[in-house]
Amino acid sequence: MIYLDHAAATPVSEKVMRAMQRYYAEDFFNPSAAYLPATKVRKEYEAAKDMIAQVIGAKGVDLVMTSGATESINLAFRAAERRSVLISAIEHPAVLANAKVAAHYDEINVDKFGRVDLDDLRKKISPEIRLISVGLASGELGTIQPIAEIAEIVKAERQRRVSAGEGNPIYLHCDASQGLGLVEVKINRLNIDMLTLNAAKVYGPKGVGALWVAHHVKLTPVVFGGGQERALRGGTENVAGVVGFAVAMQEAEKHLSAEKKRIAKLREILKKVLSEDEAIVFLGNPKRQLVNFLPILIPVIDAERLIFKLEREDIYVSTGAACSASKGEKSRTLKAIGLSDEEIAGSLRISLGKLTSGDDMRVAGELILKAVREERDRLAGSNK
Amino acid sequence: MIYLDHAAATPVSEKVMRAMQRYYAEDFFNPSAAYLPATKVRKEYEAAKDMIAQVIGAKGVDLVMTSGATESINLAFRAAERRSVLISAIEHPAVLANAKVAAHYDEINVDKFGRVDLDDLRKKISPEIRLISVGLASGELGTIQPIAEIAEIVKAERQRRVSAGEGNPIYLHCDASQGLGLVEVKINRLNIDMLTLNAAKVYGPKGVGALWVAHHVKLTPVVFGGGQERALRGGTENVAGVVGFAVAMQEAEKHLSAEKKRIAKLREILKKVLSEDEAIVFLGNPKRQLVNFLPILIPVIDAERLIFKLEREDIYVSTGAACSASKGEKSRTLKAIGLSDEEIAGSLRISLGKLTSGDDMRVAGELILKAVREERDRLAGSNK
Repeated sequence: MIYLDHAAATPVSEKVMRAMQRYYAEDFFNPSAAYLPATKVRKEYEAAKDMIAQVIGAKGVDLVMTSGATESINLAFRAAERRSVLISAIEHPAVLANAKVAAHYDEINVDKFGRVDLDDLRKKISPEIRLISVGLASGELGTIQPIAEIAEIVKAERQRRVSAGEGNPIYLHCDASQGLGLVEVKINRLNIDMLTLNAAKVYGPKGVGALWVAHHVKLTPVVFGGGQERALRGGTENVAGVVGFAVAMQEAEKHLSAEKKRIAKLREILKKVLSEDEAIVFLGNPKRQLVNFLPILIPVIDAERLIFKLEREDIYVSTGAACSASKGEKSRTLKAIGLSDEEIAGSLRISLGKLTSGDDMRVAGELILKAVREERDRLAGSNK
Repeated sequence: MIYLDHAAATPVSEKVMRAMQRYYAEDFFNPSAAYLPATKVRKEYEAAKDMIAQVIGAKGVDLVMTSGATESINLAFRAAERRSVLISAIEHPAVLANAKVAAHYDEINVDKFGRVDLDDLRKKISPEIRLISVGLASGELGTIQPIAEIAEIVKAERQRRVSAGEGNPIYLHCDASQGLGLVEVKINRLNIDMLTLNAAKVYGPKGVGALWVAHHVKLTPVVFGGGQERALRGGTENVAGVVGFAVAMQEAEKHLSAEKKRIAKLREILKKVLSEDEAIVFLGNPKRQLVNFLPILIPVIDAERLIFKLEREDIYVSTGAACSASKGEKSRTLKAIGLSDEEIAGSLRISLGKLTSGDDMRVAGELILKAVREERDRLAGSNK
């Protein structure tokens, strides 16, 4: 198997699994119970939150643990109180779904690489905007956004409001689901107000996420309940999941620089092989792209057919965000960077990761080229 | 260790853990991805939902998988659209928290055993009520509610509305977090509109739950996202968790009748030992109580102190719902059945389960009695 869809899902590492194990059958206690084994679990749960927070330069107490990035995004949007929001034109469907619930939303344009147009942001950051949400990196193109620069613009607007005596706050939320483990993510450098984290994308378990929230942000819960997570998220804590997430985050931090180099090298190998076909276009700007992303455009070819062809060779790639792709929707991201419907239909998202090795790259590259040739031959044949 | 707090948390069984394992490192694929290994995971996920649903006599497609009972309850309350709701006076804090978000809520009285007063329900079921939420069994007393009879009353009100040409619907939600695995729960017999299920209380993993929803109920999501769960709950599916839940549910069903008998016998042993102290009062009505519950009241004694005393003997009991108890709140349930603050302070919740054996019962009973005697002596001493 050559798995090239790490942007959709990642396998849980051995180390993470071992860490989680103990909390299923042994230390299964409800962390809110009063007796010693339960209060010990409570402490370990809080320590796990601290471990996660430490990686982003934050404190565990400022994390609200959730059931994943999607719930974190929902919670972040509570800060908007259904007022006007601004999102980039290439956000994950979960961000768009939340924006649509707001009273009014607008999209910030991106350039042909998928990078947020800061001038367009300056133009659209009206006095009514309550929340701006931009992902750390695009889940389809891997394009890394200039979050710190966006934060500067938000800060200027905030100061303008204060000077003008306008009372309404403005918050910046960053969905860091993609990128964690391959880019350093520090809250003080990004200068954001809220940050969404996702265990499932960093070799942690599915169904676990977090929202980091700055002290000045006022939130109401998405899930009302028994007062857990400083009354911001009800429900018995998923101790095993959060401990697994913590180990995954620490692993990600520990191996970040080595893994970044390794993956970048692998991507170069694959890129070189694919470059033999001169028609193939590499999307995004490699200088501002997650090193594990290699989105490509193969003119005239139907990428869906290619996926099924490659599947037979045990090579797994995708056409874009899994949840949208599964519903046959055209990629909004690719549309936003100016691709035509036909070009979108010919686009593949290749994403590397821990399961990728050097040999894979050559094999995958050759087999992709072969599949493309076969598809071209088929099309040429049916056009005769 | 003698664990007598199964109502707060249950250990994940070996079988459940084994079933989950495969979905962490091997079949970790995003179920929304297009390639074969992912579509296979999708099928197994849907099959797991069918397995869960089958136990309650439903179809998998009518389950919305959630991150636990608390989220399920939040989703059920979406049916109320923030209109008037009616809950029993002894619901879980998560139900109360959701009721408080509604425009108006009222509580149905319970008798001294914690059983819903059907006459009070008839009185309070006004034309404005949109949702009624009553738990299958009390999480503090184990009292089993007459859900089918409540459903009859709701049905009558629904028919009245139709006859009167009133357009507003009325729904009955039942939180079955407690009781599953010790009472048979079938949707057609209960005659409800929504049912909350919780994996963590039936020896499944924490952080996994479901809401069964009848076809005529109109819901909006709690968590907006990428269209999963028929667009009622966004977020990549927690495949391992749901598969674990399915195995736990099947185990619960398979062993229900044997386990019910076994636990009932154990409870009798403990009850007999504790009966030696004539001051101890057994709460609830054993004929309409989950067989694993033995809530007791020990006049004058401080139950919190007792918990810490017993903890030193490796016996773990609690004073009530873990999430409330941890915040030092007085039990609303015990207040509702007419206990005074002093009586509430002397109340213990003992809950048996898979980890309980016959020998434990005698040992635990004797040690509880000893602790009670010591506490009485201490109080008598300090009163001198």
